[in-house]
Amino acid sequence: MNTLLKINTDYAEYISPPLSFQNQTSNNEKQSIPLNKPYLPRFEKYSQYLASMYKNVWLTNNGPLLKELTVRMEEYLGVKNLLLTSSGTMALQIAYKTLNLTGNVVTSPYSFIATSNSLDWLGLELNFADIDNKSFNLCPSKALQAINKHTCAMLPVHVYGNPCDLVALEEIASQNKLKLIYDAAHAFDVKVDGRSIMSFGDASILSFHATKLFHCIEGGAVVFKHKDDFEKAASMINFGINTLTGEINNSGTNGKMSEAHAAMGLAMLDDIDEILERRIEHFNLYKTLLGDRVTYPQWHPEATQNAAYFPVIFESESQCTRVLEYLEKNRIQSRRYFSPSLNELGHLSSNTRTECPVSESLAKRTLCLPLFVELSKKEIKYVCSSVLFSL
Amino acid sequence: MNTLLKINTDYAEYISPPLSFQNQTSNNEKQSIPLNKPYLPRFEKYSQYLASMYKNVWLTNNGPLLKELTVRMEEYLGVKNLLLTSSGTMALQIAYKTLNLTGNVVTSPYSFIATSNSLDWLGLELNFADIDNKSFNLCPSKALQAINKHTCAMLPVHVYGNPCDLVALEEIASQNKLKLIYDAAHAFDVKVDGRSIMSFGDASILSFHATKLFHCIEGGAVVFKHKDDFEKAASMINFGINTLTGEINNSGTNGKMSEAHAAMGLAMLDDIDEILERRIEHFNLYKTLLGDRVTYPQWHPEATQNAAYFPVIFESESQCTRVLEYLEKNRIQSRRYFSPSLNELGHLSSNTRTECPVSESLAKRTLCLPLFVELSKKEIKYVCSSVLFSL
Repeated sequence: MNTLLKINTDYAEYISPPLSFQNQTSNNEKQSIPLNKPYLPRFEKYSQYLASMYKNVWLTNNGPLLKELTVRMEEYLGVKNLLLTSSGTMALQIAYKTLNLTGNVVTSPYSFIATSNSLDWLGLELNFADIDNKSFNLCPSKALQAINKHTCAMLPVHVYGNPCDLVALEEIASQNKLKLIYDAAHAFDVKVDGRSIMSFGDASILSFHATKLFHCIEGGAVVFKHKDDFEKAASMINFGINTLTGEINNSGTNGKMSEAHAAMGLAMLDDIDEILERRIEHFNLYKTLLGDRVTYPQWHPEATQNAAYFPVIFESESQCTRVLEYLEKNRIQSRRYFSPSLNELGHLSSNTRTECPVSESLAKRTLCLPLFVELSKKEIKYVCSSVLFSL
Repeated sequence: MNTLLKINTDYAEYISPPLSFQNQTSNNEKQSIPLNKPYLPRFEKYSQYLASMYKNVWLTNNGPLLKELTVRMEEYLGVKNLLLTSSGTMALQIAYKTLNLTGNVVTSPYSFIATSNSLDWLGLELNFADIDNKSFNLCPSKALQAINKHTCAMLPVHVYGNPCDLVALEEIASQNKLKLIYDAAHAFDVKVDGRSIMSFGDASILSFHATKLFHCIEGGAVVFKHKDDFEKAASMINFGINTLTGEINNSGTNGKMSEAHAAMGLAMLDDIDEILERRIEHFNLYKTLLGDRVTYPQWHPEATQNAAYFPVIFESESQCTRVLEYLEKNRIQSRRYFSPSLNELGHLSSNTRTECPVSESLAKRTLCLPLFVELSKKEIKYVCSSVLFSL
């Protein structure tokens, strides 16, 4: 109780309880500051796009809103061969099938479960290689060591939107004749030396899930290096039906993004500059307030930041747990993100007992702090004072 | 041209060109009467549900609208263990994974490609058995013959919503220790002896795609016989994450239905009685006007009808083609649905060269005629006069 009182006193220096706090506690909500809150464009704007869906009487299957979003998204990101899909997981799986993956895939154990399970779901074997201690991304030399005669591809993840070692990974893929697919689920808008992160690899995927900085409620996208892969994939998300001829000469599934989801994407894209600006402000305020009392993943030196997440690394698991519990007491939601290290999961096929000590250690002592557009400066100050107090 | 003039004269007896015809031709549309037109609930009603999605700030991941739709759908259909999914294909695949299918699956070649490709996509082998000449559904004796030591399941389809021979198939499944999954994509609302068609088999799936009589823009559902299967499936559509404990002990994917899609489902369910009434009126008018000049699939004697499709069987492929082309000339869209017989597709794995002469023959000489709520009596008369004239 004393601890709780103490932080509440500190907190009082900054702010009176925010309105959201008062409202939510009256509803018996546990968290006053959630980890995340989906951005919602003005309802009137979303409704306008939906009204045009009604006017078109076209609800899904490559409709006008989807086409508009595809054009605008390609232009915004500066890429070609972009295919919108029903989810980021679907985008990954469409990439695997399009590129004919079989055997095992070298991938990172430090990611959301979707990365691993998307492979496992399709019978592809997980071949985990450890991550780099600084970047949190697949370590190129460990990836090289993991390659064996059944390896068909590498699936590195740009964790928190932070680009992998693109040059080293491309060289390894090329020398070992492996397909290179990037899970760029977090990396919306990130550029390396002015070039979109989505333009690297044979394919690169985005997630547009509601929790992402840009979202379509549910959705995703895959960008292919080669146009023929894009065309094959476009038929695959429509059951393998060739969109021009109507013939079925591929396997396929239902991986389409609907017009109602594309409508949200269009409304989001209208607001994207403001969304990014606000998130980057929040991100920078966190860094200023927390300073060097904690550490952070080391960002790619030539890459832009998108403030998709605010991860903080603690010295030890016990410190991390202490902070997490203290935040929880103060009605601040934080999350061990990503934990557990995926190589430790029992259900995954094959060589998942590989030791990945770096990933395992970081998974135990990294927290993501609240980061969303509506977050106020006062709330960020409250979060930071709580973190610093509990170190 | 004479033919065209002739039919236009016949047509003039019934109606002047409908407004939709005039509007669409001015937009260079080819069809005046489409095969299908998605039902749209009043925009205000859909918007109200979406407004509550905004109010909840909950866009997906087992949200309040999804929960409401689940409860209402279980009540409407009279079933338990119903899981809403992102599509009908996803519902099928969740059923395969939940029931641990491996090896080959005995299935019908007379269906939409999703039935076969959903198996192929997950590495399951297609084992086609021919259909019954009257019902268009998987023939139990042919299914029995097709079973071999690698067969793990049967996947019959209630084609056009017409129930399969449920008793015979259940007996075969039971005696051969096979899982029984019904593709009931077309069979929304159908009852057999007062019992929901969804309550048969180990699992049974629905499609809620925009083209279906009940839709969620995109969506589907799977109903399990056993609660533990339902619970396993519920974690599988959320990446294998146990919704109660947060633990990951399953493979899984993103198979969730979003709140924006559930909102459409709720709005549709408000109108479902009127939708079914109107469709059944259309269906009966077609039957009255076409009479015995053509033939029809033989409906299950104890089952209700849902007027999901209006399929017509012609004597020969050439007659069928003649009718189709004549309708096309008269700006009426019809479709060889389902064609080709899926056993004839080259891309499917394994024993897909099985001969299924009944399915192959029916696929060449069956047309589905326009059927949707907004269709007018005059339009149905025009379609029927065109069919009869071109026989």
